[in-house]
Amino acid sequence: MDRSVERGAIPDSTGPEPAGDSAEAGCAPATARHPAPVVTLLICTTCRAPGNAAPPDAERDGARLLASACATTVPEGVAVEGVACLANCKRALSAAMVRRDGWTYVFGDLAPDSAADLLTGAALLAGSEDGLMPWRGRPDVLKRGMVARIPPLSAKETR
Amino acid sequence: MDRSVERGAIPDSTGPEPAGDSAEAGCAPATARHPAPVVTLLICTTCRAPGNAAPPDAERDGARLLASACATTVPEGVAVEGVACLANCKRALSAAMVRRDGWTYVFGDLAPDSAADLLTGAALLAGSEDGLMPWRGRPDVLKRGMVARIPPLSAKETR
Repeated sequence: MDRSVERGAIPDSTGPEPAGDSAEAGCAPATARHPAPVVTLLICTTCRAPGNAAPPDAERDGARLLASACATTVPEGVAVEGVACLANCKRALSAAMVRRDGWTYVFGDLAPDSAADLLTGAALLAGSEDGLMPWRGRPDVLKRGMVARIPPLSAKETR
Repeated sequence: MDRSVERGAIPDSTGPEPAGDSAEAGCAPATARHPAPVVTLLICTTCRAPGNAAPPDAERDGARLLASACATTVPEGVAVEGVACLANCKRALSAAMVRRDGWTYVFGDLAPDSAADLLTGAALLAGSEDGLMPWRGRPDVLKRGMVARIPPLSAKETR
């Protein structure tokens, strides 16, 4: 089987993930972005909301969520990017946040109108002193929708 | 509420995550480790297998999974670390893999005997040319247990 075909399709919850062609548009031209964001918010643009029976080539709910985030004021230190697939299909809509030198978070069960909550969470993560997103003050959708968190690699591993 | 209490408990699927004290033992003394592993396999040591009704202070199934991984031959370029909580409690047992300059993967629904499959997957990820874990050859438990993947930050973001 051709590898590009094997890995190129939009996955369901049991199939392979697509290839890693995650280069999608963010919120602003590269020249206008903060040169080194503290937190990068990655929104899955291939997610469909549960029960959405639109044809596969229709605009995805995840793409709409990205557009909604980009239409909102992005907090200082935060960059917003689209990614073709986070492979969190069982709990779509989905997004991840990567804190520089801190923790990475994955969220699911998001709604098409979750952009403001995502940006609130990203700002909390960007401003935290320990690289973790505080529980207190975190929007409820980012509590209920917690999927996983991944620690930064420790100094001993990255030396 | 004291923040250390608010965030210090082992979470259930709705509660807060514990603080980020993820410094746990790996498989070997730091001096014996590969100086810069290509892939770091992070095994959640606080996970309990579904249905495990052992007291909270009993040894966790996740800790046993870590010990099992450490008792297996760790492939070249792979480091194994324990982490106090990946907050993927709904799909315990859980592990993550971080590929240097590549993708990060989260897996769930693992079994106490999944160590060999995790190391096989870590070796696949370490050897991949595009920073993604190949679907072909991936152990079934890492197909069924796919939770999410997160891309590396693009060059334009990390400049």
